[in-house]
Amino acid sequence: MSEVTGRDVETLRWKDGRLEMIDQRVLPARFEYISCDSAAGVADGIRSMVVRGAPAIGCAAAYGVALAAWKLRDLGSERFREEMERAFEVLAGSRPTAVNLFWALQRMRARMAVKPDADPPEVAEELLEEAHGIVSEDIRINRAMGALGAELLPDGARVLTHCNAGALATAGHGTALGVIRSAVESGKKISVIADETRPFLQGARLTAWEMVQAKIPITLISDNMAGHLMSRGEIDAVVVGTDRVAANGDVANKIGTYMVAVLAQRHGIPFYVACPLSTIDLGIADGSEIPIEERDADEVMGYRDCRWAAQGVAVRNPAFDVTPADLVTALITEKAVVKRPTTDRVAALFAS
Amino acid sequence: MSEVTGRDVETLRWKDGRLEMIDQRVLPARFEYISCDSAAGVADGIRSMVVRGAPAIGCAAAYGVALAAWKLRDLGSERFREEMERAFEVLAGSRPTAVNLFWALQRMRARMAVKPDADPPEVAEELLEEAHGIVSEDIRINRAMGALGAELLPDGARVLTHCNAGALATAGHGTALGVIRSAVESGKKISVIADETRPFLQGARLTAWEMVQAKIPITLISDNMAGHLMSRGEIDAVVVGTDRVAANGDVANKIGTYMVAVLAQRHGIPFYVACPLSTIDLGIADGSEIPIEERDADEVMGYRDCRWAAQGVAVRNPAFDVTPADLVTALITEKAVVKRPTTDRVAALFAS
Repeated sequence: MSEVTGRDVETLRWKDGRLEMIDQRVLPARFEYISCDSAAGVADGIRSMVVRGAPAIGCAAAYGVALAAWKLRDLGSERFREEMERAFEVLAGSRPTAVNLFWALQRMRARMAVKPDADPPEVAEELLEEAHGIVSEDIRINRAMGALGAELLPDGARVLTHCNAGALATAGHGTALGVIRSAVESGKKISVIADETRPFLQGARLTAWEMVQAKIPITLISDNMAGHLMSRGEIDAVVVGTDRVAANGDVANKIGTYMVAVLAQRHGIPFYVACPLSTIDLGIADGSEIPIEERDADEVMGYRDCRWAAQGVAVRNPAFDVTPADLVTALITEKAVVKRPTTDRVAALFAS
Repeated sequence: MSEVTGRDVETLRWKDGRLEMIDQRVLPARFEYISCDSAAGVADGIRSMVVRGAPAIGCAAAYGVALAAWKLRDLGSERFREEMERAFEVLAGSRPTAVNLFWALQRMRARMAVKPDADPPEVAEELLEEAHGIVSEDIRINRAMGALGAELLPDGARVLTHCNAGALATAGHGTALGVIRSAVESGKKISVIADETRPFLQGARLTAWEMVQAKIPITLISDNMAGHLMSRGEIDAVVVGTDRVAANGDVANKIGTYMVAVLAQRHGIPFYVACPLSTIDLGIADGSEIPIEERDADEVMGYRDCRWAAQGVAVRNPAFDVTPADLVTALITEKAVVKRPTTDRVAALFAS
């Protein structure tokens, strides 16, 4: 059984010394867990998108470190620390854009540093406790963001979201979908419009699945329909998640988010970004410094076994884009809502 | 054999008293013709998108009328005209947005009206001649648009297009892709970026196929990537086709076109619309009056046999959207390029 309770969807869970993750590549056709017993296995799962979504990637990476320590706990102390270093490296190399990955690895390193002389079995215990802590904390943070964000949505709002920033993208509840879940729990009538989110179809598969499970009304559109619905007055707000926010409030998120933000601005529709503090990277000044992952051409040529594109074409497949801060109505964090983010306003979040 | 020659792709052809159309639902996996011998068969082919693209729909409808007359030519004159009326109706009911359909039917009616006392076999001959004429004329028009439009594209331009406004959407050469083909023929180095164009994937399947055939460099992206590429300075111009242009220059085209136009404006990228005069509907003042077809939910839930969306979602599937004239850098017609279209400038096209 998992050491963490109170979740709507168990995106990842610790069971008998292994990490189990819902295989998000095959949802909603199949609901099944993939089981990992090594840091390399977790890194593969992150890279191949068994698990995805910035906070969930952070949680998975933390468990990856805990798994490595668990497996290596019988080694001598020096060898243990060398091999642990390799585990950190393989996990850090899995995906480049979501900063939560690096944030979680940093937390795990910091936990190791607290007791530099602890023997490997003790370190393994401590790291597992830290990973469980990150997961429990993620759920608490999502609920706090949800409560703050829910106040921004008017009763009856038709809310567009892009990609999946739901329970499946986190340890539970979700960031953007957490805001929607919390608004519904508070008694508001909310309906969701989901961009299907090519090429990996997180909207059509994951967001749609989550909202159907939660009995929240959901309408699916292809990514190119959002502008039309906005021009017809059929969307009242946009809420999305993020993979990394720069110090000035620029937002990296799933490819297509920028397009939604530009359209929202044109139509005077508020554009909200749900972001835990762990997603804010004060180390970079603005979005131009955020590395944008380019993924495999195959993803754009079709979907899984279904291939439709003409042979002989070149393909571009950037997995993320950057929405400049001036298009963001507010960042919703667990601590406060930051309206019209700027470098000063973002810094103020961390000041007190 | 077809009565029309000089085409790169024979999207539709008249053969032994039947209309043959490339089945655009199965391209590029299979290249095959579907053969129709009745107006109802042609209407089905238009509705199910065996043939699509505003000018090609017009040509197919014209042949549909010719087919009806051919089949009915042994009837008495009164009965013939009654049955022909039904053929016009079934064709007019096939798809609502592309005005070329109604324009072509109007031309066929006008041809019938020239000799109101002609007997059915003579009418059938005349109508077939008219249909062949529409097809030949479409190719000439596309070449004229291509020559005018090619001048607008700088050498080395990276040109984004949405959907397929190519040879497959016309009788040959294409409207938007005709501009690109003509620019390449004139010696310019042009590369194309194609939006895949969900849900029917005309970009990934048809535009990509045409450009590969024509050996014009082509890069495929999903629809939500255009903004990112624009923000990185990787797109120099946009050229699209259209299904109907209102008297004020508002442009109805494949869903997602509006989004591209909004992004192009933000980035100072010219947004061109290739439109034969037959696509301009002076009967409607602006885009709000253009009927927007909503198609089946299944198209958004997946693609053909591949279904990925979660069960239980609602779906919206508008097939077109409207781009307001103020986002259009120029309309490229066979007669002239209309920069920054307005009601007066569009009217001037028809004045001389």
